Amino acid sequence: MANTIERPLDLLNQSRGKEVLLQLKGEKQIVGTLLAFDIHINIVLSNAREIENGEPKRNIGLVFIRGDTIVYISPAS
Amino acid sequence: MANTIERPLDLLNQSRGKEVLLQLKGEKQIVGTLLAFDIHINIVLSNAREIENGEPKRNIGLVFIRGDTIVYISPAS
Amino acid sequence: MANTIERPLDLLNQSRGKEVLLQLKGEKQIVGTLLAFDIHINIVLSNAREIENGEPKRNIGLVFIRGDTIVYISPAS
Amino acid sequence: MANTIERPLDLLNQSRGKEVLLQLKGEKQIVGTLLAFDIHINIVLSNAREIENGEPKRNIGLVFIRGDTIVYISPAS
Amino acid sequence: MANTIERPLDLLNQSRGKEVLLQLKGEKQIVGTLLAFDIHINIVLSNAREIENGEPKRNIGLVFIRGDTIVYISPAS
Amino acid sequence: MANTIERPLDLLNQSRGKEVLLQLKGEKQIVGTLLAFDIHINIVLSNAREIENGEPKRNIGLVFIRGDTIVYISPAS
Amino acid sequence: MANTIERPLDLLNQSRGKEVLLQLKGEKQIVGTLLAFDIHINIVLSNAREIENGEPKRNIGLVFIRGDTIVYISPAS
Repeated sequence: MANTIERPLDLLNQSRGKEVLLQLKGEKQIVGTLLAFDIHINIVLSNAREIENGEPKRNIGLVFIRGDTIVYISPAS
Repeated sequence: MANTIERPLDLLNQSRGKEVLLQLKGEKQIVGTLLAFDIHINIVLSNAREIENGEPKRNIGLVFIRGDTIVYISPAS
Repeated sequence: MANTIERPLDLLNQSRGKEVLLQLKGEKQIVGTLLAFDIHINIVLSNAREIENGEPKRNIGLVFIRGDTIVYISPAS
Repeated sequence: MANTIERPLDLLNQSRGKEVLLQLKGEKQIVGTLLAFDIHINIVLSNAREIENGEPKRNIGLVFIRGDTIVYISPAS
Repeated sequence: MANTIERPLDLLNQSRGKEVLLQLKGEKQIVGTLLAFDIHINIVLSNAREIENGEPKRNIGLVFIRGDTIVYISPAS
Repeated sequence: MANTIERPLDLLNQSRGKEVLLQLKGEKQIVGTLLAFDIHINIVLSNAREIENGEPKRNIGLVFIRGDTIVYISPAS
Repeated sequence: MANTIERPLDLLNQSRGKEVLLQLKGEKQIVGTLLAFDIHINIVLSNAREIENGEPKRNIGLVFIRGDTIVYISPAS
């Protein structure tokens, strides 16, 4: 997968339909299935859950996350 | 619903007239019925209530919320 | 009123000449009569008062408020 | 004065040559005579004084204030 | 000097070659001779000194200061 | 390597496929192999690990990091 | 050197290949040799070292520093 990444958005494109971990500013983490993103890095996840200290904390379900609150996005390995 | 989301704003479009939960920066949460939004993610809700620790705290009614204070927006399941 | 809101700025347009509550970043609240606004959500209020813990704290009178300090704007019900 | 305000900048225009109170981010306040402003809400005051807890704290004289540090601007009544 | 200021940048223009006080975000102050500025309010000072509680703290000499860290700029009276 | 750097992005270009250290705002550090970047300094790393006080803390693997959370990027020497 | 500075970026241009001190937001300081910069004030230094309380703390070597974390840049005198 890493071999075909020329631009940063390629990684998001390849992660559509897959589980990702979002690290937000201020220590909040959200995991869920990546449905959509745009150039502002606005993200839609389905089946999203907030994570705290590695433990699931709250089910959010379908969610729109604004790009400017995101630190990083990592596909679940 | 999730099957038809190609771009992040599709989720907001599909949530018009429905109850949504807004997570704001600094732990504030607001729930209400989504009436309108724009590309800056400015939002208008009707029948809005502030939520604190999962409990309703204050009725706000009709409200305009600036996009740049928003962390995420989730349709009530 | 809510029935005729297509875009977020419609709510501000309909609130001209009426009392509104402004929630600013950092817990400050201001109430006053909405005289004018622009696309940056810069706001002019007349007869404005700062509110703290639900109590009036200081009369400000006529005031220009920069949009980027605003969290939400709600017409008084 | 309030009757002739169509756009937010009209209030600043009408306040040229008059005393205004500036509320800055982080509780600092400055009063002075409004000499000039631009669309970024950059402001020049003459005879400016910093105010703390309602008391004058320091004379600044002539001063250029960057718009993005300003919360609100109110003409002295 | 105040009489000829139509736009905020006029004050900076008139202050070239003169001593100015810069108030930065987070209480830092710098004094020095204003050599150059641009529309982003980026500033170059010569003979600059950091000031803390009204006392000189550190000589900086020639320095480029990014505009977005500046609260206000005041010509020494 | 330093001799051929005319513009800042040249350093990132020369670091593709090599190990880099990212210093994020708020003391977080991430090391990994630089796969891709864009003009917003959005970054994709493979084999990324979070570092705390110089010690590896958590494996992240493949990751997209938003540019506006980055303080600096240094190729491992 | 100061005599030939018309615009702020002239100082950075004249400092290429010379030692500079970077003051970052949040008290971090970095010294190093200025190799490159751009209009966003993104900077590349070689032989960079982090400084804390005036003492060298960590060698960074070659480094790309994002402009928006920079408070000021001063050529070593």
